[in-house]
Amino acid sequence: MEIPILIDPGNRQSLQAQIYDQVRKLILGGRLKPGTLVPASRALAGQLGVSRNTVMLAYDRLGAEGYLQMREAIGTYVSFELPEDCLTAKRVAPANQAKVQELSLRRPIAFEGRAQRVFNDRYLAYDFFLGRVDAHSFPIKAWRRLINRAMVTAGTRLLEYQDPAGVLGLRKAIADRIGPARGINVDPDQIVIVAGCQEGLNLTARLLLREGMSAAIENPAYQGAAYLYESYRARLVPVRVDENGLCIDDLPEAGAALLYVTPSHQYPMGFTLSLERRLRLLDWARRTGTYIVEDDYDSDFRYRGSPIAALMGLDSHGCVIYLGTFSKSIGSGLRLGYLVLPKHLVQPARAAKALLDNGHPWLDQVVLAEFLARGGFDNHLRRIRQTYAERRDCLTDWLKRYFGEVVISGAECGMHIAWHLAEDLPRAVELETMAAEHGVGVYTLQSGAACDFGGCAYSERTLMLGFSSLTEQQIRSGVERIAAAVDAARGTRPARGLRSPSLPISRVRPRLAVAKP
Amino acid sequence: MEIPILIDPGNRQSLQAQIYDQVRKLILGGRLKPGTLVPASRALAGQLGVSRNTVMLAYDRLGAEGYLQMREAIGTYVSFELPEDCLTAKRVAPANQAKVQELSLRRPIAFEGRAQRVFNDRYLAYDFFLGRVDAHSFPIKAWRRLINRAMVTAGTRLLEYQDPAGVLGLRKAIADRIGPARGINVDPDQIVIVAGCQEGLNLTARLLLREGMSAAIENPAYQGAAYLYESYRARLVPVRVDENGLCIDDLPEAGAALLYVTPSHQYPMGFTLSLERRLRLLDWARRTGTYIVEDDYDSDFRYRGSPIAALMGLDSHGCVIYLGTFSKSIGSGLRLGYLVLPKHLVQPARAAKALLDNGHPWLDQVVLAEFLARGGFDNHLRRIRQTYAERRDCLTDWLKRYFGEVVISGAECGMHIAWHLAEDLPRAVELETMAAEHGVGVYTLQSGAACDFGGCAYSERTLMLGFSSLTEQQIRSGVERIAAAVDAARGTRPARGLRSPSLPISRVRPRLAVAKP
Repeated sequence: MEIPILIDPGNRQSLQAQIYDQVRKLILGGRLKPGTLVPASRALAGQLGVSRNTVMLAYDRLGAEGYLQMREAIGTYVSFELPEDCLTAKRVAPANQAKVQELSLRRPIAFEGRAQRVFNDRYLAYDFFLGRVDAHSFPIKAWRRLINRAMVTAGTRLLEYQDPAGVLGLRKAIADRIGPARGINVDPDQIVIVAGCQEGLNLTARLLLREGMSAAIENPAYQGAAYLYESYRARLVPVRVDENGLCIDDLPEAGAALLYVTPSHQYPMGFTLSLERRLRLLDWARRTGTYIVEDDYDSDFRYRGSPIAALMGLDSHGCVIYLGTFSKSIGSGLRLGYLVLPKHLVQPARAAKALLDNGHPWLDQVVLAEFLARGGFDNHLRRIRQTYAERRDCLTDWLKRYFGEVVISGAECGMHIAWHLAEDLPRAVELETMAAEHGVGVYTLQSGAACDFGGCAYSERTLMLGFSSLTEQQIRSGVERIAAAVDAARGTRPARGLRSPSLPISRVRPRLAVAKP
Repeated sequence: MEIPILIDPGNRQSLQAQIYDQVRKLILGGRLKPGTLVPASRALAGQLGVSRNTVMLAYDRLGAEGYLQMREAIGTYVSFELPEDCLTAKRVAPANQAKVQELSLRRPIAFEGRAQRVFNDRYLAYDFFLGRVDAHSFPIKAWRRLINRAMVTAGTRLLEYQDPAGVLGLRKAIADRIGPARGINVDPDQIVIVAGCQEGLNLTARLLLREGMSAAIENPAYQGAAYLYESYRARLVPVRVDENGLCIDDLPEAGAALLYVTPSHQYPMGFTLSLERRLRLLDWARRTGTYIVEDDYDSDFRYRGSPIAALMGLDSHGCVIYLGTFSKSIGSGLRLGYLVLPKHLVQPARAAKALLDNGHPWLDQVVLAEFLARGGFDNHLRRIRQTYAERRDCLTDWLKRYFGEVVISGAECGMHIAWHLAEDLPRAVELETMAAEHGVGVYTLQSGAACDFGGCAYSERTLMLGFSSLTEQQIRSGVERIAAAVDAARGTRPARGLRSPSLPISRVRPRLAVAKP
C-alpha cells in the first residue's frame, strides 16, 4: 500500500521530520487505523525518493512514541494501544473551531480584564502622547559601557535565580536616593525591584486585595490601577479630586483594603496633593486601617518649588506603600521600578514577588545600580529636566498664544499638562478627533489612559498633552495645527491657514517669538 | 529662642536639607507647635554657623510646603493650618511599632503565600542543587556581541512601551523553533513572552483561576505551581503520578479550572508521560472542559530516544496552554520564557500581561531573538546537552559504583535525577542532613522545590540530585562523600574514609575508573 505523504524539498523541516509528521497526522486523523500495516521502509523510501535510512529513522521515532509497532515477520503496523476514544475524538479534528467554542462556553475563563492604554502604535506627525520620554535622551553610551562592564563579571549571575526582591546593590542605590529626594528613609531591605509601576501595582494588589474587597481610587484615575483592581473583582470606591488633589472629606469612613493615589502629580489632572491633605489622608488611613498605595510616577520632573515630602516620608504608622519607576526618567522599555514597603509587609511582598516571576532580570538591575551610584542618573535627570522645562514653557506659551488665557493644570511637575478647555472650544472628544485629522495627537482622559468613574467634573472639557517627547518646533507646529483644526471646524479661514494668535506678541517670551519660523 | 538642630558636616545631605529635615521633624513631632515663632534666619544661621542664605532656602521650602508661614513685622512661625488631629497623631510617633501592629491586626493583608525554593544562597562544596545551569556555559561572547549590536539600533525602543505580548521577532523565532522541536505549529500571535516559567504560571492562573475554583495538580508537584495556586485560594486537587507520569484514572471526573502537568520530565520524579496517557489526558480535558497547563521546563535536554510530541502539539481542541522557558537552556538570571496559547485565549492573555507588568524588558528579547534566529541557540544547546549527558552518565555510574543497583528515574531527560533509596539506606530527610554535614547538597522532594500533598509514595525515600552544574570530578567526589556520610552514620570506617565501591570495577566505564583520583 502507498500512503499519502508529500515530501517538500523546499520545506525547512528535515525529510525525516516531514515523514514523521505526516504519518503521525494520518494516524491521529484516523486515516491509518490501528493494526494497519504501513509500507516497509524500503518501499516508502522508493515511493518518496529518499534514502531508506531516513524512513527508518522516522519510523523509529514513531515507534518510540507508541504510534507504530514493529514485529519481525509481520512488519510495521499502527499501534493497537492508542485508545479508541481518543482516536474518535481526533477524527473530528476538522470540526476544530466548533469544539474550541464548546470548551470556552462550558468553562468560561476567570479573567475579565481590559488593558490600560500605554502602548501607542499609531503614527501622527505631532503626537502629544502621554508619559513618553524624549526620543534622543536615552543614555545609550553610558548604558552600553555599563552593560559591557557588567558582562565581564556576569559569571554565574545570568545563570542563577537571584534574590526575588532584587539585586542588593540596586536596592541600596535607590534607598540612598529616595532619602534626600523624597524624604523617605528606609533600609534597602524594604525595597523590592519590580518591572515598572504596573508590576508594583499588581504586587500590591496581590498583597492587599481579594475578590469583593473595596479599593478606593482617585476619580479620575490612572487606568493601569483601575483596570487592575477591576480584574481582581474588587469593589472600586472612586474619590473626587480637585485642584488640591484627592478630596479627603470624600474618603469612605469605613476605610478600604487600599487607597490608590498619585500625590505628586495626580494622574491625569496633574494636581499636587497639598501638605494639609497629606497629613489628613495619613490620619484617615491610620484610623480606618487602610493601606495607601502612593504612585510617584513622574515626580523626578519638578519645575517649580520644592517637592512636598512623599506620603511615605510623612507616615509613621506603616500604612503607606510607595511606588517608584524609571520608566519616565530613563525609559519604559527598561521595565524597571521599585516598591518601598513598611517593614511588616516586606516578607509577604518577597513571597508574592517570587510567586509572580522569581525576581527581575539581573543584568538591567546591576547596570542601573551603577548608573545611580556613579552619578550618571543625576546628570541625566538634570539634563532632561531642563529640556522638559523648556518644552513645557513652549507648550503653555503657544497654547496661550493661540487660545488666549488657557487654564492649565499640572504644569509644575511631570511630563504632561491638563488643558481645561474654555466654553468656546469644542468638547475634548471632538477636539481630539479634529486634531487627529490634522495629524496631531491630543488625548481625552479616557484615551489618555485615565478612567472616569462618572461624576467627574473634568471629563468633558479636559485634554491631556504630553510635551516631553516633542521638540519645541514640533510643539509649536502641533499647537498651530490644533488651532487650524478648530478654525476649520468653525468654518473660519485665517490667513496662511492658521488661526491668528489671540495674544499680543509682547506677551509671548521673546525667545519663542524669535524661534517662530 | 534656639531650636535643637544639629548640623553634621560629614552628612551627605546638604546643610539646607539638614535644616529643612530637622525643622520639619520638630513640627511634625509636636515640639514646635502651631503659631510658634521660629528663630529669624540670621539668628539661626549664627547659631548653626552656616550662611544666612542656607537657612533662608530651608525656610522657603518649609514655607512652600505649608509648614511655616512668613508675615512681615511678625516673622516666621509654624503654620496654623496643620490640622490639630494630625499633629496629635504625629506626637505619638515613638509608639510607632505598636501602631504598626495595630494596623496590621485591624486589616490583615489578603495575601497568604509561601515562596518556592529555587533561590539557593547556601554554600556547599558539592551541591547537587536542582535546575542549575553549568556555571561556565553562558554564551557570554555571543550575548555581548548581540547586545552591542542591538544597542546601536536601540533608538527609541528602550524608551517606549512595547507590545505587551513581546517583541514580534522573538515570538517568530520561538514559533519557528517549537514546530519541529515540540510538534507545536502556531502563529507567533499565539505566543506571549513572559519572565520565565513562573510568570507564565502566574499569567495562566490569572486567566483561569478564581478563589474557590479547583486546580488539579500532580502529586508530588512543583512548588512554584502549587504554592501559586494556593495563594489564589484555589482548591488543589492532587493527582497521583507513577512511572508513566500522571495517573489518568485518578483525574477528577468533574474536571477543574485547570490541570498543571509536566509531561516531558515530571517534576520532581522525572517520569515521562506516555503517549497513551497523553491522548487520554487530552480526551479528559476536552470532555470535562479543563484547561491543561503544560510546563515543559527542561525538555531541551533529552538524552535517549526522541521526544514525545508536546500535549499542545497533540491537541486539536484548544484546551492546552504550553509553557516554555530559557531558564534551563541559557540561564535563570535572564528571566525569559513564553506561553503558547490556543487562539481564543490570546486576547485575554495579552490584557492580563499588560495589567501584570506592561510587557517584558525590550533588550533581552531582541538579543534572544537574534540568538535563536542565527543558530547560536542550537549550537549552544548541542554543546551543553553533550556536557550534561556526560555528567548524567557520571552521576548514575558513580551512584551504582557506591550504592549497587540503584533505582533512578528521570535520567532520559532534564537536569536532575530522582534516586529511589533502597531499604538499607537512611530515609531521604536523614540522608540529606548527613550529606550536608559532609559538604554535599542532595534534596528531598520538599527541599528540592517539590510539594507532597500527602499520600505520595515517593516522599520518604526519594532524593533529588541535579547534575548539570557540577563537573564530573565534583560529581564523583560528591557521591564518594555521600557514601562516606552513610558509612559514618553506620559506624563503619572503610579504608581512606570512603565506602568501598559495591560494584566490581569492570562494570564502571573505563573513563571513569581512570579519572578516579
